[in-house]
Amino acid sequence: MDSLKELSKSRSFDGNVIRYSHESKELGCEMKFHIYVPPAALTQQKKVPVLWFLAGITSTDENFIIKSGAIRYASKEGLLLVCPDTSPRGCKIAGEDDSWDFGTGAGFYLDATQEPWSKNYRMYSYVSKELFQLVNSAFANWVQTDNHGMMGHSMGGCGALNLTFKNPGQYKSLSVFAPICDPSNGKLGAKCFKGYLGDNQDLWNQYNPSHLAKSYQGEKLDILIDQGTADEFLNTDLFPETLTKVQNPNLSFTLRYHEGYPHNYFFISTFVEDHFNHHSSKLNKFC
Amino acid sequence: MDSLKELSKSRSFDGNVIRYSHESKELGCEMKFHIYVPPAALTQQKKVPVLWFLAGITSTDENFIIKSGAIRYASKEGLLLVCPDTSPRGCKIAGEDDSWDFGTGAGFYLDATQEPWSKNYRMYSYVSKELFQLVNSAFANWVQTDNHGMMGHSMGGCGALNLTFKNPGQYKSLSVFAPICDPSNGKLGAKCFKGYLGDNQDLWNQYNPSHLAKSYQGEKLDILIDQGTADEFLNTDLFPETLTKVQNPNLSFTLRYHEGYPHNYFFISTFVEDHFNHHSSKLNKFC
Repeated sequence: MDSLKELSKSRSFDGNVIRYSHESKELGCEMKFHIYVPPAALTQQKKVPVLWFLAGITSTDENFIIKSGAIRYASKEGLLLVCPDTSPRGCKIAGEDDSWDFGTGAGFYLDATQEPWSKNYRMYSYVSKELFQLVNSAFANWVQTDNHGMMGHSMGGCGALNLTFKNPGQYKSLSVFAPICDPSNGKLGAKCFKGYLGDNQDLWNQYNPSHLAKSYQGEKLDILIDQGTADEFLNTDLFPETLTKVQNPNLSFTLRYHEGYPHNYFFISTFVEDHFNHHSSKLNKFC
Repeated sequence: MDSLKELSKSRSFDGNVIRYSHESKELGCEMKFHIYVPPAALTQQKKVPVLWFLAGITSTDENFIIKSGAIRYASKEGLLLVCPDTSPRGCKIAGEDDSWDFGTGAGFYLDATQEPWSKNYRMYSYVSKELFQLVNSAFANWVQTDNHGMMGHSMGGCGALNLTFKNPGQYKSLSVFAPICDPSNGKLGAKCFKGYLGDNQDLWNQYNPSHLAKSYQGEKLDILIDQGTADEFLNTDLFPETLTKVQNPNLSFTLRYHEGYPHNYFFISTFVEDHFNHHSSKLNKFC
């Protein structure tokens, strides 16, 4: 992959945290992402499963790798972690940087159809196709190319659910922290959907986990959802029970409420070990 | 403590991460600090030991609490964690913000004697006296006021060693990550010592762990030192073996070199569990 540039590399828990940049064709800009290569891949010359984390609004590729405490568990469970950015960067679209919850940092993991966003704001195709293929090809010596799992937080929880439901089999395990489950009916989701997708409700449904869950027909998925009761977005944006009340024999939901926990990484770090165990029990059984 | 203002509070690992601000008399400015209150203090109505972490140059009170993964262990071991800032802030001293390694963010945990620094740059007295007393009085319902331990990283490792050696009995356990052990002979240390203390080598010695270690006469201390071999400051600033070669029957050193590890928080997070075990085995035996 001659387009992949290594920006930094640091030892952690006997593996390597590496930050790369590359020119994205889908997004038309340079993008950064982080990976963590666990010692199992480095030293035991054994290929490992891949676990993705999609971050929330205002985050970059750095937040989860720095703040979540996840490296310990990625190292222990032998999972190669991939942390993409949350939107295109520096595309110089008018209005891109005007608000914290639209444009830069808020790509919502969808392919925009509205001008002026439709050329660059293609995070759905970027993450699920371009970066997926790049990871499998660039890191072919480290990863099991057919054994990926998916996590996400908030907007990234919405993305994690959508990408998994829309690509049956591509991600074999799924868990989310405080996900936006019904974006069409939430403040943040509706603002972004209107801006990126216009008024077409059929399009909105294509990026709404609570809608997609109804027709999902892939392999059975057991989805772990952690949610804090003191989450400041719970009643305006997240609506986990709209998702978990969907009746689909191919989906089961474990929704855990945690008394007093907010929306931030102090919450995520508390429960991230359980998520790695959830993914490892699925992904590592193929080893 | 009516001067203590709660800026934020977040649940994590069944305890609370709290950020405070207060008016520091020693420093003549408003200062921020973080604490983590473990569940043992909150729910078991039991007082717990206090563990301090002094951060390195350019850090604030946020770095360790956000990046180290330490909360998991503070929760498990039942230690109340205190993370001070690294210098006075906003004192409007000419030159304060001109370089990354002097002035703001680089207080070096000493009491400056040179103008214009001597009025505000009193981090030694701030941490070891003012904030020590504030923690014991403001959090008297949570902490064992006579049972504190001390950690630090880089410049904060230097501070942790100095504060402990200069105040026998005040900190009963001690560990450091990549500490500056002989600041008088290092690039960063000599620049700060010259600026804050002038040319008086007797004064420099009073903040040099490798000098103070020779005359330490307090209770026996077993000091854990972790050091990465790929640390970019190892050969210009840290000099751990200048410290560990000091012969003093009241001090023992466990210096561990870690192949390929750098100076950052990916290094710290890898070994922080061992440090909490080190402190807990000393501090919790009084319970």
